[in-house]
Amino acid sequence: MFRKLNAELIGTFWLVFGGCGSAIFAAQGIGLLGVSLAFGLTVVTMAYAIGPISGCHLNPAVSLGLWAGGRFNARELVPYILAQLIGGALAGGALYLIASGSPSFDPMSGFAANGYGAQGSPGSYSLQSVLLAELLLTAFFLFIIMGATDKLAPSDFAPLAIGLGLTLIHLISIPIDNTSVNPARSLGVAFFANQLFQQQLWAFLVAPLVGGVLGALAYRAVRKAD
Amino acid sequence: MFRKLNAELIGTFWLVFGGCGSAIFAAQGIGLLGVSLAFGLTVVTMAYAIGPISGCHLNPAVSLGLWAGGRFNARELVPYILAQLIGGALAGGALYLIASGSPSFDPMSGFAANGYGAQGSPGSYSLQSVLLAELLLTAFFLFIIMGATDKLAPSDFAPLAIGLGLTLIHLISIPIDNTSVNPARSLGVAFFANQLFQQQLWAFLVAPLVGGVLGALAYRAVRKAD
Amino acid sequence: MFRKLNAELIGTFWLVFGGCGSAIFAAQGIGLLGVSLAFGLTVVTMAYAIGPISGCHLNPAVSLGLWAGGRFNARELVPYILAQLIGGALAGGALYLIASGSPSFDPMSGFAANGYGAQGSPGSYSLQSVLLAELLLTAFFLFIIMGATDKLAPSDFAPLAIGLGLTLIHLISIPIDNTSVNPARSLGVAFFANQLFQQQLWAFLVAPLVGGVLGALAYRAVRKAD
Amino acid sequence: MFRKLNAELIGTFWLVFGGCGSAIFAAQGIGLLGVSLAFGLTVVTMAYAIGPISGCHLNPAVSLGLWAGGRFNARELVPYILAQLIGGALAGGALYLIASGSPSFDPMSGFAANGYGAQGSPGSYSLQSVLLAELLLTAFFLFIIMGATDKLAPSDFAPLAIGLGLTLIHLISIPIDNTSVNPARSLGVAFFANQLFQQQLWAFLVAPLVGGVLGALAYRAVRKAD
Repeated sequence: MFRKLNAELIGTFWLVFGGCGSAIFAAQGIGLLGVSLAFGLTVVTMAYAIGPISGCHLNPAVSLGLWAGGRFNARELVPYILAQLIGGALAGGALYLIASGSPSFDPMSGFAANGYGAQGSPGSYSLQSVLLAELLLTAFFLFIIMGATDKLAPSDFAPLAIGLGLTLIHLISIPIDNTSVNPARSLGVAFFANQLFQQQLWAFLVAPLVGGVLGALAYRAVRKAD
Repeated sequence: MFRKLNAELIGTFWLVFGGCGSAIFAAQGIGLLGVSLAFGLTVVTMAYAIGPISGCHLNPAVSLGLWAGGRFNARELVPYILAQLIGGALAGGALYLIASGSPSFDPMSGFAANGYGAQGSPGSYSLQSVLLAELLLTAFFLFIIMGATDKLAPSDFAPLAIGLGLTLIHLISIPIDNTSVNPARSLGVAFFANQLFQQQLWAFLVAPLVGGVLGALAYRAVRKAD
Repeated sequence: MFRKLNAELIGTFWLVFGGCGSAIFAAQGIGLLGVSLAFGLTVVTMAYAIGPISGCHLNPAVSLGLWAGGRFNARELVPYILAQLIGGALAGGALYLIASGSPSFDPMSGFAANGYGAQGSPGSYSLQSVLLAELLLTAFFLFIIMGATDKLAPSDFAPLAIGLGLTLIHLISIPIDNTSVNPARSLGVAFFANQLFQQQLWAFLVAPLVGGVLGALAYRAVRKAD
Repeated sequence: MFRKLNAELIGTFWLVFGGCGSAIFAAQGIGLLGVSLAFGLTVVTMAYAIGPISGCHLNPAVSLGLWAGGRFNARELVPYILAQLIGGALAGGALYLIASGSPSFDPMSGFAANGYGAQGSPGSYSLQSVLLAELLLTAFFLFIIMGATDKLAPSDFAPLAIGLGLTLIHLISIPIDNTSVNPARSLGVAFFANQLFQQQLWAFLVAPLVGGVLGALAYRAVRKAD
């Protein structure tokens, strides 16, 4: 168990450090496509590295969804989520340390935080649009995870399918709300961003968790039909 | 059967929601390369998730082509196509709901619809050019699908080959006609776009269906030669 | 044999149609990165589709190199190369047909042809630089092909390694000479481009063929050492 | 042994030639995303080609880290590192030869060298930020390598996981210091760049080597826990 929690903490650090880091340090050079690829590759790389150890969830919505889908143990749920939140927050701190060594760093900037509405959303999308997008995208994320790790599927490819799925989710929705689908990612950087983003944080805890559960249940329903 | 149709409906929703969604919400940020990648990744992710359930066609031209190529059952053809069309149209509706929460949304814009000629084609390509491009590209798409899922090939890689094939097709032809090769994708967003695109819709039903059949037959001919 | 030649002709058509087509129709939208990805994906997709049929060379420098490396039969060499040259030229014609349906098409433009010097090279690289680059890049291309298809390597991954290798080669060298490493690709579009490019064609026949042989021999020497 | 050293020399040549070459010749066209992809693909392609021969380290920090992690033999360490440094320096020379054939080549430019501070870092990041970034990124690189090549993991996917991990590392950190995580890559081009970069070279020898050892030890600790 200790081994699994260490793996989840380190893996979630990598997801937030790599994904949000690419946005904070390099978005002007690599564009939103580069940021989307970076988020996905944190999952691809860690899933091959620690998948056999902890399952490589790196995301409370994934752990909760997999529990709802009958693939994850209830008693591991809270420890996993705590390890993920700690890993994400440590990554936020490391990003802050490095970013503050650049003369152009603005500590009041967005810091890759998730937001909604005229001030928080990159494209000024409304709260309703953001909630619907997060719900749908996390639901499909869990649907894909449930399917790609099903015993029917070639499981060695699951890290690619899931990581590239996270890239796809970012390709769709960065302009909507900077893309969460992951409460640990949202929490990890919100501490270091403008207060506005801390007030909006609730949306990126609630919508991914609900969406994740719905997506996992949907997969289970399709799988058992007929 | 019900299980398969649910999978096709959900999968085609994802193809249209993810592919067209990346174009509608994010094209300015991710460019045509990002949109091309998004379309391909909808197929990569769904093929690993539902491939073992329904075969993951997500496209009437694929279902028809596979039937012509001797790989798909005639009596499943119409139900599959209906599920795909419904999934695509539901995705169009979901995209409309989210997009209308942005102040810069223009309901009369293209909405990622396919078109030809001076008004419908991004690069003002003529109807003849568009028909030839759709025919050739869908033919090669089915040729690749037939080959990559042949028992001669390593079938676990087929989702990558086919999904990345769809990315390639978009890299070639977005400026020509926004790329269809899929009647369900074209129909799904045409409802929500300018009337012009509804009048031009026929081209994106006919050319992919004909091209898909020709491509599957071409593969079969090559395979059986000698 | 007829089966193999059909496969090579169709596959080389796809390489030139997809790779050069992405450059001709979409380079302004997808950038040089998109064009690089397109070239690589033509090989990834075809290698999974026809690899089991013909080996999916699609390139006279690959066929000649594999022969020099002891992996390809001398008596198949000329027929393979002819099929590749015909497939490439037919693709050039199809590209011309589609491109001429756009009002902004300039028949005297580069048409994605390869060139050197102040007028032919995108970055005005000298003939010596171009010859050295083509020689080195084709040599490494064959080195990778020989290694990735060696019985020591996991052969199901060879299409990915080789196709992504072609993407990498384009990422390095499009500004140098539009990247050839493939006489069939160079010949296929040179017919339809400015005469200048026809005069410079020799360089893109000679350097890739010589480089390919050297790369295959280098792999063989490394493999047999110790 | 000779076979392995030849493979490492040729592989490291490819890493520096392809990665730094894409930056020197094509960065304006392919962007930082294209350069990031190029670095990663040098590893993907070579790992499938020479992985079975030498393990495809191509990087003194990888060789040292794998030794610290108990996966590499002490007596092969120095020969491997020498072969890597020679391969990297030869690649720097080849890049110089090709680049000098372009009229716009500036021999005093950065030549893709790594640097820190107001003059050496693309984004003027401080020495402390650069050291922390290199340390963390190389540590995670080795963590991923140790995990993806563990007998628990599907080893045929290791080249993809590791190569795409290098792409991810570049997506995060090119603006910080042009990304090293590899002393052979830093040394290979520093000879041909402005003297400033030679004075700053020490940082890109020390930080990756220390980070690599820490990352390998961290993986070992996680793996053995519980």
